[in-house]
Amino acid sequence: MNQEPIYEGKAKKIFTTQNPDELLVYFKDDATAFNGVKKGTIVNKGMLNNKISTFFFDLLGKNGIPHHFIRMLNDREMLVKKLDILMVEVVVRNIAAGSLAKRIGWEEGRKLPCTVVEMYYKNDELGDPLINAYHIKALNLATDEQIRIMETYALKINDILTDYLKNKKLALIDFKLEFGIHKGEVLLGDEISPDTCRFWDTETGEKLDKDRFRRDLGDVEDAYEEVLFRLTGETVK
Amino acid sequence: MNQEPIYEGKAKKIFTTQNPDELLVYFKDDATAFNGVKKGTIVNKGMLNNKISTFFFDLLGKNGIPHHFIRMLNDREMLVKKLDILMVEVVVRNIAAGSLAKRIGWEEGRKLPCTVVEMYYKNDELGDPLINAYHIKALNLATDEQIRIMETYALKINDILTDYLKNKKLALIDFKLEFGIHKGEVLLGDEISPDTCRFWDTETGEKLDKDRFRRDLGDVEDAYEEVLFRLTGETVK
Ligand SMILES: Nc1ncnc2c1ncn2[C@@H]1O[C@H](COP(=O)(O)OP(=O)(O)O)[C@@H](O)[C@H]1O
Ligand SMILES: Nc1ncnc2c1ncn2[C@@H]1O[C@H](COP(=O)(O)OP(=O)(O)O)[C@@H](O)[C@H]1O
Ligand SMILES: [Mg+2]
Ligand SMILES: [Mg+2]
Repeated sequence: MNQEPIYEGKAKKIFTTQNPDELLVYFKDDATAFNGVKKGTIVNKGMLNNKISTFFFDLLGKNGIPHHFIRMLNDREMLVKKLDILMVEVVVRNIAAGSLAKRIGWEEGRKLPCTVVEMYYKNDELGDPLINAYHIKALNLATDEQIRIMETYALKINDILTDYLKNKKLALIDFKLEFGIHKGEVLLGDEISPDTCRFWDTETGEKLDKDRFRRDLGDVEDAYEEVLFRLTGETVK
Repeated sequence: MNQEPIYEGKAKKIFTTQNPDELLVYFKDDATAFNGVKKGTIVNKGMLNNKISTFFFDLLGKNGIPHHFIRMLNDREMLVKKLDILMVEVVVRNIAAGSLAKRIGWEEGRKLPCTVVEMYYKNDELGDPLINAYHIKALNLATDEQIRIMETYALKINDILTDYLKNKKLALIDFKLEFGIHKGEVLLGDEISPDTCRFWDTETGEKLDKDRFRRDLGDVEDAYEEVLFRLTGETVK
């Protein structure tokens, strides 16, 4: 794997493989926040997110969610099905936090009376703005049917993950998903990790996710390690 | 009508009447923009918006849209059915302009491939943020059925107004609606005027709405007068 990536994003590099239907995802230690304004490194993050994502894709696949993940290749790399990514970020929220808390004027930590699904235009230049189904149609980002499928999967994924994490004493506050099209089918793509989810310890309320980096709370790496440990019992040190 | 208003907003004052089901709306000349940051006066605006709104409510009523308007009382006042206002502003857009142009990164004036309906949380403190049906449910702002009705009316109103205005050489770029509940029924409320719509001359592209005030384009009063004149042939000077 000495070639150039076909895409280098904020957290991962994407490489082609000999199979045109498959891609290799390399997880970096780079961390960014606030749409790339804050930059840093989280030691071992690439390894941790690769393992955590692997775990979650496995769990979701067993529970009937079609996804891009094929297998882990090594500590930092996974093989995935190549997707035409839908440029919509789907966010699911159970507890008010982050931009939602600001948007609706609720204190962070307040339980939402119902699960909230949001769609954002995946566009760094525009700061990933909130959009609705009409915008998605006008921008030609996805069909009505694809929107419906993403929403259905998002809610199902929320149920599966919330349930599973409860036993690991982790509250699933919110998370971001990306979907894409592979051979005409909508598949869950990208990653599921402390970079893309908010996990709070159910007993102490301690944040075990990227908010430790965003808000300079310290012990960032420990938090990611704790998540992996609770999920698989594994340590990376 | 020497009593105190029960509510004074940015553009109108609301008074009770002897009939508890009815309210009196007084249209002021005050103009605000950018959520109250910019303040000014547009001479005769109150009178113009009262007459323009009267005209539009009449037109919409004749075309099957249930609304709060009962009758004009005098140049600056109308009698309306009292509503429990749903704290959702419904925006309909045909051409990219204003905050939508910014949100999706389109130049102002570009035709949208499909009509876009947006819902905003009517909350000045939060700057009237864009929300979706999940937020509306979580915030308990309206029921799913009320959302459905508002959306249906909004699209029908867009068809009625667009059609009508075309003959007056006015392009309906976008507009904001408010709805409320009266005796269990969803009615169109508030006002429909150059304060709440964008009207562009179909030939010259000239803006004939509050953007003249927002953007210091001059001839603000003339623009409002021109709209009334095109609708009814009436002048107020
Ligand atoms: N299976 C896949 N096929 C193609 N692209 C993918 C797949 N999974 C994720 N991607 C895309 O690859 C990139 C992952 O790198 P990342 O560092 O997260 O990028 P970004 O900074 O754009 O979020 C993202 O743009 C993501 O949409
Ligand atoms: N029929 C009605 N019954 C009760 N309230 C209404 C009715 N129509 C409009 N309103 C409300 O009256 C106020 C009108 O005044 P306005 O100056 O536009 O206020 P604001 O600054 O809140 O937008 C608005 O809050 C609007 O929601
Ligand atoms: Mg990413
Ligand atoms: Mg108003």
